[in-house]
Amino acid sequence: MTAPVVPIYDRVAFIGLGLIASSMALSIRQFGLAREIIGHDKSDETRAIALEIGLCDCVFDTAGAAVEGADLVVLCVPVGAMGEIAAAIAPHLKQGACVTDVGSVKQAVIEAVAAHIPAGVVFVPAHPLAGTEHSGPRSGFATLFQNRWCLLTPTKTSTPEATARLRALWERMGANVDEMDAAHHDLVLAVVSHTPHLIAYTMVGVADHLGRVSNSEVIKYSASGFRDFTRIAASDPTMWRDVFLTNKDAVLDILGRFTEELFVLQRAIRMGDGDELYAYFMRTRAIRRGIIEAGQDTAAPDFGRVVTKKDG
Amino acid sequence: MTAPVVPIYDRVAFIGLGLIASSMALSIRQFGLAREIIGHDKSDETRAIALEIGLCDCVFDTAGAAVEGADLVVLCVPVGAMGEIAAAIAPHLKQGACVTDVGSVKQAVIEAVAAHIPAGVVFVPAHPLAGTEHSGPRSGFATLFQNRWCLLTPTKTSTPEATARLRALWERMGANVDEMDAAHHDLVLAVVSHTPHLIAYTMVGVADHLGRVSNSEVIKYSASGFRDFTRIAASDPTMWRDVFLTNKDAVLDILGRFTEELFVLQRAIRMGDGDELYAYFMRTRAIRRGIIEAGQDTAAPDFGRVVTKKDG
Repeated sequence: MTAPVVPIYDRVAFIGLGLIASSMALSIRQFGLAREIIGHDKSDETRAIALEIGLCDCVFDTAGAAVEGADLVVLCVPVGAMGEIAAAIAPHLKQGACVTDVGSVKQAVIEAVAAHIPAGVVFVPAHPLAGTEHSGPRSGFATLFQNRWCLLTPTKTSTPEATARLRALWERMGANVDEMDAAHHDLVLAVVSHTPHLIAYTMVGVADHLGRVSNSEVIKYSASGFRDFTRIAASDPTMWRDVFLTNKDAVLDILGRFTEELFVLQRAIRMGDGDELYAYFMRTRAIRRGIIEAGQDTAAPDFGRVVTKKDG
Repeated sequence: MTAPVVPIYDRVAFIGLGLIASSMALSIRQFGLAREIIGHDKSDETRAIALEIGLCDCVFDTAGAAVEGADLVVLCVPVGAMGEIAAAIAPHLKQGACVTDVGSVKQAVIEAVAAHIPAGVVFVPAHPLAGTEHSGPRSGFATLFQNRWCLLTPTKTSTPEATARLRALWERMGANVDEMDAAHHDLVLAVVSHTPHLIAYTMVGVADHLGRVSNSEVIKYSASGFRDFTRIAASDPTMWRDVFLTNKDAVLDILGRFTEELFVLQRAIRMGDGDELYAYFMRTRAIRRGIIEAGQDTAAPDFGRVVTKKDG
């Protein structure tokens, strides 16, 4: 006999209906974590799709109307749009409501949002480390957060009760939850996500520019490493623009270290120093083993990736 | 009624029994492409494993003994070891035999090998663009080359007949075959494979060095982009050391372009130029679409990757 499902929130409102919001909505519905799911997106087309595919019980044309009466408001807009949205919804927030977000940068979101949060409402910043290279309301799926991390960066205005309730929501959606300081979050993410994305974008851009190696060759022969970069570099341009602009200091710091390190390897290549290269590559190999042992990736060769043969 | 399987070669000898050789051996056996498969590896342990798992009909302790009587000799050693191996097998090669290789760099292999090829033997350099982050004789699988490219870079000493026969072998193993000039091959590979690998190694190295972000955090939160880099950076250290040392000029050329480009994006971040970042990211997104349309990767989100939940 299983215990009856108890919703964690009565009414959840999503502002912005892209990959993360749609995945959360599907997950919340599947696991019965809220009684009612409300949505808003500034795009007419996205709102129409959300209604068509039944993502929300109700879709509103304005963010203010969407948050009326909601216990939990989830801001799922690009980081650069958070402040404006917070200002727009502030007068409509219910007393006792919790506002959270899913932004990839936390200090800038806190700076932009916290000042707009009225008394009697709490703000608990959050960041699920989950996503795919696809975007939009049709790209969501209920299992996106399974075994992924969600990082909460509570502020002075986050009450322990509101934080615990939000943590329960993420855990019931399948995520592992950690809490940390917003500045530390931004540095960790600069290493594990933001800088790798910028580098992948750069490498794909270099390939794109090279007249001598035509695009069709780059695409044809991409399977040898490059295609992994292109997946990363296919992520949502608006979201990533905002990430780099708002986590500037940490990204520039890590980029500086990256360039230094690259120059060391570049010099080893130029000087023909095989021992240095070999020693470096042995060290990096060990990190991969750690990730697989931590259950954060598959040990299957090539991610267990299946490529459909096109020409039969 | 299916046509009877006609072997393409009588006896094939593999020198070096790692991922590529073991995959070729399994594929040749599965599709009946040779009557006999011979192997040699300089490691006692690898030879013992090859015998134990039945990879070859016969395993020899020396490369010279292994190539005696072979119609096709496949050099599957790191690029830096090709010259020495070519010298060692030269006196043992059968008249009319074809020597080929699977090295990731072609000009350096041709320089190292061609001079040792005796009259009456042909050399047809080849490079299958296939692999995984795993290595060794147990890592091979018969379908590794399905829908992957194999690039042949025939030299003056490659006869059209020998090239056509080798092409048939690769096609029967499931590969798409292209022919090109060795210098062009080395430049294309510097873009689609060698430089991306060096960059991935570098980024993983940066993460490894960062005292402020402990290793465990890098591993824990790796799913946000970084783990794709770690897969690439887990590839065989010896093989990759040799690739960078032997394709030095092309890699340094592409690295120079990469650094330039990275500085442009870094400057845009520093100056807060969101328009430039957005425009750049829109362009790189289009390349991903091309790769999926070309059947070189899966459109499934996140490579269709399945991560086993560790803690249940």
